[in-house]
Amino acid sequence: METAQPTVIENNRSDNGTAPRAVDWENPRVSAILSAAAKCFARKGFSATTLAEIGKELGLRKSIVHYYFASKAALIHEVQSFTYHKYLGRVKEALASDTSADRIGSALHSLWDAIQNNKTGTGLNIEVWSAARRDPELKRRASALHSDAHKLVHEHIVQGLGITNGDTQRGEALSTLILAVLNGLSVTEYLEGDEAKSKHAYEMFVSLLNQNRNAS
Amino acid sequence: METAQPTVIENNRSDNGTAPRAVDWENPRVSAILSAAAKCFARKGFSATTLAEIGKELGLRKSIVHYYFASKAALIHEVQSFTYHKYLGRVKEALASDTSADRIGSALHSLWDAIQNNKTGTGLNIEVWSAARRDPELKRRASALHSDAHKLVHEHIVQGLGITNGDTQRGEALSTLILAVLNGLSVTEYLEGDEAKSKHAYEMFVSLLNQNRNAS
Repeated sequence: METAQPTVIENNRSDNGTAPRAVDWENPRVSAILSAAAKCFARKGFSATTLAEIGKELGLRKSIVHYYFASKAALIHEVQSFTYHKYLGRVKEALASDTSADRIGSALHSLWDAIQNNKTGTGLNIEVWSAARRDPELKRRASALHSDAHKLVHEHIVQGLGITNGDTQRGEALSTLILAVLNGLSVTEYLEGDEAKSKHAYEMFVSLLNQNRNAS
Repeated sequence: METAQPTVIENNRSDNGTAPRAVDWENPRVSAILSAAAKCFARKGFSATTLAEIGKELGLRKSIVHYYFASKAALIHEVQSFTYHKYLGRVKEALASDTSADRIGSALHSLWDAIQNNKTGTGLNIEVWSAARRDPELKRRASALHSDAHKLVHEHIVQGLGITNGDTQRGEALSTLILAVLNGLSVTEYLEGDEAKSKHAYEMFVSLLNQNRNAS
């Protein structure tokens, strides 16, 4: 059954395994609400943030926010996908325009850069991890997004490191490790607020990867 | 001013930089309440858990929990320190009794093992990261505990890898990286529930570290 609101497309789950998108992100008002919500959620957490506050950020009445998102839960689900896709989109863009000799190092660097420029994303991730335990739909979406990121890392970094498709287990392990390092360091930075510290650790990781490349 | 309750020692901050300990953990009832609280918090989160529920886990009235902990906030602060110290204590014990040839690999392995056997700790960590943004005292404690763990990693692993005290920056970077990998992989496992996956990524990291040792 079609919905009467043209901007809301429910259950539009794509078949290619990417995360579902329930709302039309091309609608400027929808994307403005999602961006404002991401900021509020990252700042105060899900439970302490109200739809009215999110509207206030944009000078909108709560009822307008409600028109696009039936509940705070619906907005939380959507904000996660929206922010993550924006993040991965930025990384893909950087990869497409990249002409450097060390494409792998530069792919890893784009991921790192995108995290550095996206403190809201880190705060939001932590909020999602915490809430996912009480919200199966949020957890399902978080897993789907995580596996999108995993695929990106695998295609652009791991295969480039000369790990062939035959050696699936090593490639999988390395993709998992790379994502864990990025997540772990974003938490370090969030907790300690020390950008130089996590940057040095990131560079240490890159040098370990490079030694591995030269050795094999 | 001394408090009238013999089991409560307020503001007992040690001078050697370790995390403060406000409550007598040797008291069996205190440690039972802290263990039960850790379980409840990791399962349902801070905001959804009540002192009454924590008491119920132990067959205690809410007023008894209140006798030892003035508020849920006080209990949350203490649970974090308690769980973390139990975790680091287990690691130190394993290190003390270790007689293997590869003491560094085995130190790293004890840290990893302790995380594997402490799902409550991972759930609690995520809850702390999320709540720390709204609770400066929780954040201060989380930073102090993080720096305890950092010190442990530095003493037992990084120095053993042959990085001398002179090369402080490299040693710091490696300690930060190791903690980030452990945190990041515990999140992966928490989100995906796939122990084999994070184990393979952990082993990949150990092999990168070993190649670095052999190369230098």
